[in-house]
Amino acid sequence: MSALSPEFSLIDRYFTRPARSATLGVGDDSALLRPTPGMELAVTSDLLVSGTHFLPDTHPERLGWKTLAVNLSDLAAMGAKPRWVTLALSLPAVDEVWLAAFAQGFFACADAFGVELVGGDTTRGALTLCVTALGEVPRGEALRRDGARAGDDVWISGTVGLAALGLRHLLGHPGLPASLAQRCVAHLECPQPRVELGLALRGIATAALDISDGLLADLGHLARRSGLAARLERDSLPVLSAEVAGDLAEAALNAFLSGGDDYELCFSAPAERRADVAQIAAHLDLPLWRIGAMQTGVPGSVAVTTREGLPLPLPTQAGYDHFCACA
Amino acid sequence: MSALSPEFSLIDRYFTRPARSATLGVGDDSALLRPTPGMELAVTSDLLVSGTHFLPDTHPERLGWKTLAVNLSDLAAMGAKPRWVTLALSLPAVDEVWLAAFAQGFFACADAFGVELVGGDTTRGALTLCVTALGEVPRGEALRRDGARAGDDVWISGTVGLAALGLRHLLGHPGLPASLAQRCVAHLECPQPRVELGLALRGIATAALDISDGLLADLGHLARRSGLAARLERDSLPVLSAEVAGDLAEAALNAFLSGGDDYELCFSAPAERRADVAQIAAHLDLPLWRIGAMQTGVPGSVAVTTREGLPLPLPTQAGYDHFCACA
Repeated sequence: MSALSPEFSLIDRYFTRPARSATLGVGDDSALLRPTPGMELAVTSDLLVSGTHFLPDTHPERLGWKTLAVNLSDLAAMGAKPRWVTLALSLPAVDEVWLAAFAQGFFACADAFGVELVGGDTTRGALTLCVTALGEVPRGEALRRDGARAGDDVWISGTVGLAALGLRHLLGHPGLPASLAQRCVAHLECPQPRVELGLALRGIATAALDISDGLLADLGHLARRSGLAARLERDSLPVLSAEVAGDLAEAALNAFLSGGDDYELCFSAPAERRADVAQIAAHLDLPLWRIGAMQTGVPGSVAVTTREGLPLPLPTQAGYDHFCACA
Repeated sequence: MSALSPEFSLIDRYFTRPARSATLGVGDDSALLRPTPGMELAVTSDLLVSGTHFLPDTHPERLGWKTLAVNLSDLAAMGAKPRWVTLALSLPAVDEVWLAAFAQGFFACADAFGVELVGGDTTRGALTLCVTALGEVPRGEALRRDGARAGDDVWISGTVGLAALGLRHLLGHPGLPASLAQRCVAHLECPQPRVELGLALRGIATAALDISDGLLADLGHLARRSGLAARLERDSLPVLSAEVAGDLAEAALNAFLSGGDDYELCFSAPAERRADVAQIAAHLDLPLWRIGAMQTGVPGSVAVTTREGLPLPLPTQAGYDHFCACA
């Protein structure tokens, strides 16, 4: 099915490139792909809606990048190598400048991660973007959410919480130093899917996911699927605090624990693999933080404690709500 | 990425069933599938937008069926066996009665064609539905659009044009006898993807696609991709005419030539395979009509002629515009 409006069929121009690894790409009833023998196929679909997942005035080049990046992040969290994607989008009207910029950002991300756009659909409607990403992972080696064991370390990558601070800044809340604000907004609008990290963690991590809804909420998902609880040590949390103070320090802690849209990975690994994790961090030049441990307890519960194990109160906002973030 | 609103996470309940053929289904960062060795993977994504692709008051059970059916139709047109689908949807608000009915229609179609829902995403937004369907076809046997040869017969399945007449009826145009109106609306709202036909045509059809934009437009696509022209014989066209008269007869011809949303197959096959095509029709109890031939000429052009080869004028509306149909 495709849209026949001559105006809209113009759109295809922006998204059609010759097939590379695909036997057949854009332009037939479906794409034809040749999966690699011995691999499992990882498949994920995300829908991004203007005003819910991104601010309506987001620069289209950054939006193009992010639209693909958030899907590649799901593959990264499985330890899968991204291969192919489809893109379906609806737009209220054709705006060639907007489309050219969106396509540029989308393909910049595709090229950065070796992904081929193999099909899609364009139609009229509220600005909505749906990407389906396909990746490959050797059979039985995927990083699922349900493999964590009691006693495993809990790790996160990168700097968690920047995206939520960036959104706060864009919504007009003052206080961020200019250079930090820029970094936070870039993190929000151009997230880096941790594809290399996901590949490196095969055989080391026992469970993994990406942080899209906020650390507490996402770690809760991992814990629940693994039938365990998780405990974070307050002193081990890499919260921005040297750079900010006062109200902003509290916002930074909230952003760290409950902010969304970071697309860093959170994973569990046995304590005896700490040296392997450190080697990965050095090899990828990417900070990896050990922030707590998995333990028996109410499945899905996450506590933050002092080094001595005393519980600390948690912020009331338990997760990032995509429906409110851009309202 | 998923939406965390407690209200919306309810939605997942309607779409979560235990994984069958998938190693891992709904609930992780991605699904994990095991492609069959030796098969190519056919992948297609479609976006359905309320008010563009369907009337806003369409019964949700029928909409659930159609949302999946139009994607399976793309796989059918490739000769691929449908295996797995993802569903991403945005909704303005949670309506449990609506969701339960939508899921019932969606799964009725999934069960009818042996397809497994393996992942998805739900979020707030204008009613928009994005399905990605994955199917399998033996290497090199897919029914592409670009394989037609000069002299091949042109065939269509079923009764083309019913869907457009059904839409006309729903939009308040009078004239259809009640029983025919009911049949046309059912054809519009509950299309039957011709999966069995697509499988049977492997090795027989030289090119194929499904009729979603209207026969002239879609046959034009097939012809253009094959570097050929197509000619239809007016007397061979199975247009509803015994049942309708006057203005409606003209509407029926327009619906046949330019109506969309039929999801019948249009395919080319060598003249020496006519007996094979007839056997398929008998075996599937599905009418297959030989309506013309592929020939050299301006690539993508489609003419309608008398039996003697004289050209007939074509309706000015060259294709079905999803953007206007439901306005």
